[in-house]
Amino acid sequence: MSGIYECVPNISEGRDPIVVAECVNAVSSIKGITLMNYSSDVDHNRSVITFLGSAEAIEEAAVALSKKTTELIDLRLHKGEHPRVGALDVLPVVPLRNATAEDAIALSERIAERIWQENQVPCYLYEDSARYPHRKNLADVRRGEFEGLAEKTKDPEWIPDFGEGYHLSAGVTVVGARFFLIAYNFDLATSDISIAKAIAKKIRQSNGGLPCVKALGVILESENVAQVTVNLTDYTVTPLWKLTEEVRALAIEYGTEVTSAELIGLVPMGALTDAAGHYLGIRDFDHKKRVIEEYLL
Amino acid sequence: MSGIYECVPNISEGRDPIVVAECVNAVSSIKGITLMNYSSDVDHNRSVITFLGSAEAIEEAAVALSKKTTELIDLRLHKGEHPRVGALDVLPVVPLRNATAEDAIALSERIAERIWQENQVPCYLYEDSARYPHRKNLADVRRGEFEGLAEKTKDPEWIPDFGEGYHLSAGVTVVGARFFLIAYNFDLATSDISIAKAIAKKIRQSNGGLPCVKALGVILESENVAQVTVNLTDYTVTPLWKLTEEVRALAIEYGTEVTSAELIGLVPMGALTDAAGHYLGIRDFDHKKRVIEEYLL
Repeated sequence: MSGIYECVPNISEGRDPIVVAECVNAVSSIKGITLMNYSSDVDHNRSVITFLGSAEAIEEAAVALSKKTTELIDLRLHKGEHPRVGALDVLPVVPLRNATAEDAIALSERIAERIWQENQVPCYLYEDSARYPHRKNLADVRRGEFEGLAEKTKDPEWIPDFGEGYHLSAGVTVVGARFFLIAYNFDLATSDISIAKAIAKKIRQSNGGLPCVKALGVILESENVAQVTVNLTDYTVTPLWKLTEEVRALAIEYGTEVTSAELIGLVPMGALTDAAGHYLGIRDFDHKKRVIEEYLL
Repeated sequence: MSGIYECVPNISEGRDPIVVAECVNAVSSIKGITLMNYSSDVDHNRSVITFLGSAEAIEEAAVALSKKTTELIDLRLHKGEHPRVGALDVLPVVPLRNATAEDAIALSERIAERIWQENQVPCYLYEDSARYPHRKNLADVRRGEFEGLAEKTKDPEWIPDFGEGYHLSAGVTVVGARFFLIAYNFDLATSDISIAKAIAKKIRQSNGGLPCVKALGVILESENVAQVTVNLTDYTVTPLWKLTEEVRALAIEYGTEVTSAELIGLVPMGALTDAAGHYLGIRDFDHKKRVIEEYLL
């Protein structure tokens, strides 16, 4: 059976709906691509596009998206809450069904090579595709952001894996295979960003918090709301309900509360059926055995 | 595409594992049947078997199960908490994919006819297959139980839809098409059955409670625990989380609490992903659009 992959590129445009639409079209017009979802965040000034397809279709769509973002997005003019290094900022490839992590790594390498060859945008390989331990973590690859690329790409530690230097307007692109990542935000009942930052610090793995959790505290200026923005890199290690309960408890400790959560893009059913089992209090619940669709896929 | 159905027969044996195993084997040995789950309840003295297949496979498996239960189960010797009228007590057919309610009704009629013709067990049609309004509700068809069949089957209102009278040891079988039913129990932190009965009365639709909810208060003698046992006939009308919160609130009103919930058999992912979205507090969450597996089925 032919493998199916998910691709979840983040592009550095979340304010101009025409530009976002042209980028989305570049992807969805590729034969064999199922566009699943896209969403733009005005404060972050970035958009996430989620699509599915075979390895061949994903490769074509990724290269086409790189071409379009390079044409339309100029990072020298870009401002937003979220760290970024490229017009096509990060392009994760996730093996969904009938595909291994190794298959996804090979696919990510083909994409990175073509982005450099065809669009002259240098690429870093990260996560499971990383060729050096210090490039595994996206936050490290992105440190210094677009504005720091002139210096960073000269550092022998940070020569891109494909290409050299950086594209003057489109920066670099970070490409890699990884497990399914849940992008999840918690809105707080406060505009105090220091609380969001304190909560983020307590929950993130790198500060001794929850495993597989990356977190930042940000302020949503359009709504004057402090937000804890989280990447959960393996929901089978830290369940979504555990992350949620931890953030809710910390918010109360800091004298505020979580008003709502925001799910960016899509989520595998297992992350939710597991959470439902927990909150409903179903005993001896194994979501892989008790959900009917698990038997139909 | 060929339709896929779920079949969830309840048999009146939950104490003798050899008898249960022989009944399960009668089903799983039919070509094209996927056995998904079976569970026995000692207090109810009944078992639920869940399996999937095409219309043809389901028909063969249902007739084979009727034959085996008629051979092995004698209702004249049966005692248990749960109401029952047959060795093969009730056989619901649920259209899962690429099958309509009408397809499921036609399938249920073929099964009922063959159970009577081949095993001499008369059948009633219920739920969507019911030919008379007063036979739609399973509780009405089952009223009087096995012990009342001699009298009931003579009542012109209750002549079986297929066959006549009742099988002396195997009773009758109730066959019908229906929407996906969630069988769900709430254990209470009390052994006072009157509390379970009072909660059941408040939540059941027939007493003005929640739509699509049927409920009974029972006592689990083996554990000395009072339990609210629920059939939720349409989780898209009354969500599982709403049912749960209602029972939890009522339990507290009656000075006790829900200690855990029990899911019998299987559940569609939509019932759980919807509950997860509620409890996690995800805003604007449409589980049909945000769960990746919805796009893969």
